[in-house]
Amino acid sequence: MTSKPAIVLLSGGLDSATVLAIANKEGYECHALSFDYGQRHRLELESAKQVASQLGVVEHVISSIDLSAWGGSALTDDIHVPKKGKSDGIPVTYVPARNIIFLSHALGFAEAIGSRDIFIGVNAVDYSGYPDCREEFITAFENTANLATKAGVEGEPFTIHTPLLQLSKVDIIKRGLELDVDYSMTQSCYDPEEFGSPCGKCDACRIRIDAFNQLHSAQSQ
Amino acid sequence: MTSKPAIVLLSGGLDSATVLAIANKEGYECHALSFDYGQRHRLELESAKQVASQLGVVEHVISSIDLSAWGGSALTDDIHVPKKGKSDGIPVTYVPARNIIFLSHALGFAEAIGSRDIFIGVNAVDYSGYPDCREEFITAFENTANLATKAGVEGEPFTIHTPLLQLSKVDIIKRGLELDVDYSMTQSCYDPEEFGSPCGKCDACRIRIDAFNQLHSAQSQ
Repeated sequence: MTSKPAIVLLSGGLDSATVLAIANKEGYECHALSFDYGQRHRLELESAKQVASQLGVVEHVISSIDLSAWGGSALTDDIHVPKKGKSDGIPVTYVPARNIIFLSHALGFAEAIGSRDIFIGVNAVDYSGYPDCREEFITAFENTANLATKAGVEGEPFTIHTPLLQLSKVDIIKRGLELDVDYSMTQSCYDPEEFGSPCGKCDACRIRIDAFNQLHSAQSQ
Repeated sequence: MTSKPAIVLLSGGLDSATVLAIANKEGYECHALSFDYGQRHRLELESAKQVASQLGVVEHVISSIDLSAWGGSALTDDIHVPKKGKSDGIPVTYVPARNIIFLSHALGFAEAIGSRDIFIGVNAVDYSGYPDCREEFITAFENTANLATKAGVEGEPFTIHTPLLQLSKVDIIKRGLELDVDYSMTQSCYDPEEFGSPCGKCDACRIRIDAFNQLHSAQSQ
């Protein structure tokens, strides 16, 4: 059992809650990092606080970085969030450079507190449309991180952990349930009206609802 | 002469002012990006505003990202800024992951406005102590940026321009003077008492003063 510090990116959604539970299970002392980035679904931060509290973290930092200053996404700009099923290509809910920005902040946080481990809940199966959820991006980021930092240059490399990368949404939920994640605290919706009121129609809602439906069907067979 | 948008990282110091003048000269429509990151020398932002105004930019965005939340540097934490000359190794003024964070934000800004060009005033000669001022880091970042983004994946790659990378501080100033940069507006000090009052003793002050002295000696010979 290891006992060393890790940074866990925590959005308040289903995936990152599962990742936090996994990092805890692996024995890391988890420092959760969330972002208030001007997202329309800022309510997810309330979920992040609850998840951090329920699963247990050393600290939970909510960092303000206003990505809506330049927009370019349905999540940070005045662009309609699609609610009629998945379209081809990269969705308009893609936020320019979001994961490289989040990981870079996590890297600074990690180096400052002497951590060499960063956890992120990217998932290439369900969200194949997002370029920054793919393994080749994560590998390139890790390489860059180790060239960008004092620790990396001095031979103490960082590892980017992506325990969900190849899991389906159903398998993510199964893993989380084994680890006692209370998914009622998590929030996936891109466009909630209020806390606890997902729209039920955006991509994030559809994928989440489908996965729970699949799981219930399998369990009742 | 090109006429396309570029993001120019602008600290308010000597190097980035020169870079802005170079990007302007190359015909880019420059969008300047500065950061209020909790730096003790936040006064440099006043210089950044003056430089942006004097040299001319399409817009100047000052983004707040609080890196002092985790500290780990003499520039963002309660650590003494050295004033007795250069020491060996990476200086304590190194800010964990600063340039990868700055470049990642610039990348998001660039993608959102349809720019594929980012300018940064890193300089491997005078600041060889900082890992994130080296060419290998910039090359790795550029590669990662093109895997992280919709534009990169869709075959419209980003270029990170580093026109100062191999120049000495004296040569940077010479280039800036050719381009009518008013260096009296710039501020390099890590620990100024007030606007326009550099300490004269920190590394940044020493390197700047040495360079101007060398230039004056050469001109008076």
